[in-house]
Amino acid sequence: MNYFVYDKDGSKLPINILSVSPSGKYFLGDHWIKSRMLKSELNCYRVIRTDGDEAECEILGSGTDYAAWEFAAPLKEIIWEEENGRAVAVFHNYDYGNPKWFDQHSSIPFDKELFQQFKIRRKNQKNRRKNSMSKIRIGIAGYGNLGKGVELAIRQNDDMELAGIFTRRDPSTVKPLTEGAKVFRLDDAKNMTDAIDVMIICGGSATDLPEQTPELAKYFNVIDSFDTHARIPEHFANVDKAAKESGNLAFISLGWDPGLFSLNRLYAESILPSGKTYTFWGKGVSQGHSDAIRRVEGVKKGIQYTVPVEAAMEAVRSGSQPELTTRQKHLRECWVVAEEGADKAKIEESIKTMKNYFDEYDTTVNFISEEEFNAVHNKMPHGGFVMRSGVTGDGEKTHQMIEYSLKLESNPEFTASVLICFARALDRMKKEGATGCKTAFDVPPAYLSPLSGEELRAHLL
Amino acid sequence: MNYFVYDKDGSKLPINILSVSPSGKYFLGDHWIKSRMLKSELNCYRVIRTDGDEAECEILGSGTDYAAWEFAAPLKEIIWEEENGRAVAVFHNYDYGNPKWFDQHSSIPFDKELFQQFKIRRKNQKNRRKNSMSKIRIGIAGYGNLGKGVELAIRQNDDMELAGIFTRRDPSTVKPLTEGAKVFRLDDAKNMTDAIDVMIICGGSATDLPEQTPELAKYFNVIDSFDTHARIPEHFANVDKAAKESGNLAFISLGWDPGLFSLNRLYAESILPSGKTYTFWGKGVSQGHSDAIRRVEGVKKGIQYTVPVEAAMEAVRSGSQPELTTRQKHLRECWVVAEEGADKAKIEESIKTMKNYFDEYDTTVNFISEEEFNAVHNKMPHGGFVMRSGVTGDGEKTHQMIEYSLKLESNPEFTASVLICFARALDRMKKEGATGCKTAFDVPPAYLSPLSGEELRAHLL
Repeated sequence: MNYFVYDKDGSKLPINILSVSPSGKYFLGDHWIKSRMLKSELNCYRVIRTDGDEAECEILGSGTDYAAWEFAAPLKEIIWEEENGRAVAVFHNYDYGNPKWFDQHSSIPFDKELFQQFKIRRKNQKNRRKNSMSKIRIGIAGYGNLGKGVELAIRQNDDMELAGIFTRRDPSTVKPLTEGAKVFRLDDAKNMTDAIDVMIICGGSATDLPEQTPELAKYFNVIDSFDTHARIPEHFANVDKAAKESGNLAFISLGWDPGLFSLNRLYAESILPSGKTYTFWGKGVSQGHSDAIRRVEGVKKGIQYTVPVEAAMEAVRSGSQPELTTRQKHLRECWVVAEEGADKAKIEESIKTMKNYFDEYDTTVNFISEEEFNAVHNKMPHGGFVMRSGVTGDGEKTHQMIEYSLKLESNPEFTASVLICFARALDRMKKEGATGCKTAFDVPPAYLSPLSGEELRAHLL
Repeated sequence: MNYFVYDKDGSKLPINILSVSPSGKYFLGDHWIKSRMLKSELNCYRVIRTDGDEAECEILGSGTDYAAWEFAAPLKEIIWEEENGRAVAVFHNYDYGNPKWFDQHSSIPFDKELFQQFKIRRKNQKNRRKNSMSKIRIGIAGYGNLGKGVELAIRQNDDMELAGIFTRRDPSTVKPLTEGAKVFRLDDAKNMTDAIDVMIICGGSATDLPEQTPELAKYFNVIDSFDTHARIPEHFANVDKAAKESGNLAFISLGWDPGLFSLNRLYAESILPSGKTYTFWGKGVSQGHSDAIRRVEGVKKGIQYTVPVEAAMEAVRSGSQPELTTRQKHLRECWVVAEEGADKAKIEESIKTMKNYFDEYDTTVNFISEEEFNAVHNKMPHGGFVMRSGVTGDGEKTHQMIEYSLKLESNPEFTASVLICFARALDRMKKEGATGCKTAFDVPPAYLSPLSGEELRAHLL
């Protein structure tokens, strides 16, 4: 919190803002009298009006010596008790008489009669951070399909705003979809740490993210969609180290797989420990396989759809827990525009026998005109299924089936929507003091929603 | 932790055990010299051998004055650094020079050369709690279909054990499925708080749980499957109050709806804020509707299946976001054995026109023989679907579809499996100091699994 607090006459007060309530309506500040002596006044403030760079606030009450003792424990949350007209600070606390850690409401006597008026000003006037009620300021690093998806997803979330797009290209050549959106050089990002709450890194997993995420985690709270499953432990370790050293919080490998599919594997396997999990992908465009087609000689344009085999999915749904080979699970469907005069039989043969990409699959290759290609194959649909077939009960004879599926008209837009809602969770967990690297597995689901705990329990539970 | 620590000569040492690492292999103890003066020796111990009621342990190292200062902040975890041969305590910490909360490795100098041997003994010898590496001891309150399901689910989870079944009936009349399982009077439970880590309350939502859960939360960490959606906020408040006062942790409204379906509504609505959510139930047995049938005059046996309308689900899957009436979403299918000489036409009419239960639905009533009823309708299958149809992108024209479904051969066994894996999460969150009432929304998914963070990232992400 880069804030200073001023008295009404404009003189600067020696108040540090220590913690802000989840709603942003309250914050905790202190007067340090002597460092390390734990003698301080602890105050709870309520933000009552915000106007540009300034926020008016009231002191709800002052702390006592007892409160100061408690203050050595981190604040957990501030709760406004409407009926009592007071704010209560909840600490991770320690009871000296009964040695065990526990959470407790502190007895700080917040008293409405002590109300005083103050002005609070941002330290860094050039960045437009109004106060803690401000929107979550999102930076986008990398402006391809995913970056554009994030930009559009921000519009659907009232508590977010686009703080800037960062690119390795010449910023003047990048035209954002959002009027007034600012584009910066990626290299300049590190000078803008005060302007960004969460940086969403929209590069590719092959070469961009292994480098960019640990680097940007030195300066920002970051989120990426790193999806090279086999290299996740290594990426996690690199990002965790960088984020811990800088005191930032990083979420990696978010999107739908890894991401939502991972979550569903985890929930399903935890609930049904005896069983078998299956993941099917598609029908959808595989970027890697489409790129591979386009590298074949004589291919002008090409696209590949991964198609799950319906019969295999039905076998799983039957509860028989079949062993399925690669070939039995997915088909690969290719649509190709050949160069004029190219040998189509040879193209088809080259694709179907391509090692690691097509040779283990039943692959179809369809040649079409460029007009048809442009009209029909210009989207990036995807999706898939996670299924857990498990058994419970006496002798494990009862079949139980959990199935999760996605049908997406746009893979990058959906992935972006996942990243954005996890940005909300990141912002909350960071305010609670979390640092280092986390994944979807570590995030309490409630943190993803703009609704309060009460609202969630009343409407979604 | 009800432990005492003894020196090798048997004399009791003034050591309090403050916190145990997630693995149970390390714990933090202190010597308090003077209360409230923050003068203490802080020690990290490693549990090296357990044998019945005793555990041998080593002191890995002693704290300094600096550590004592840090000790005023709650311990987060203890990490054993194999390569350095030392344990490092990680605190939620406070840096007095730079006022913000952050996590930091403490600099407590754990020194292998300071190793000493101690014995640690449980305070309460009559209960068989070996040490923190022990299994999670589950109590079952209420022994109907759900209670039996919990008993069977414990067998599928190596880190759990059945500590006892509690019943309102005469315990001698209850025959558990598990050899050697003990059955107690529910009224006696409160005298067994040391023997149970998590009490799973398996009563009904109508009258049992609103009373039992707050009552048992006074003595135990509890989990229930309270499923009267409209009364969840009230139930939450009651349980939260009881659990906060006792320092216990309670999870309510777990199972699949509320529970897994709630989680899927939350994830899906957070990801796709613009859209519409649909929940379909079935095909499955509705206990409430089956009971209603059995109250009709002339009905000897009866069962009701709730059936989702396939056409309605297809309309949702199309992305058209239809408005669906109650009648359009579900059918009600009844199977009835009539008393001899009963008026079947009258029975059918009574069922179909029954207010709140059947009048708003298309209902079919089928009369069958008692033999057929007993042979075919003796199971409790259920399931259902949660669907979110959302839009993303420029002008919100891109359709995105999330679908979650369950096909369960046994509703109570599956619900029990959900309760059991949340018991694992509860035990972990309790050890971290959480108290009060929580729901599925508050639980980080990783806590549900017996696997470590590393294993989850390597295998499920």
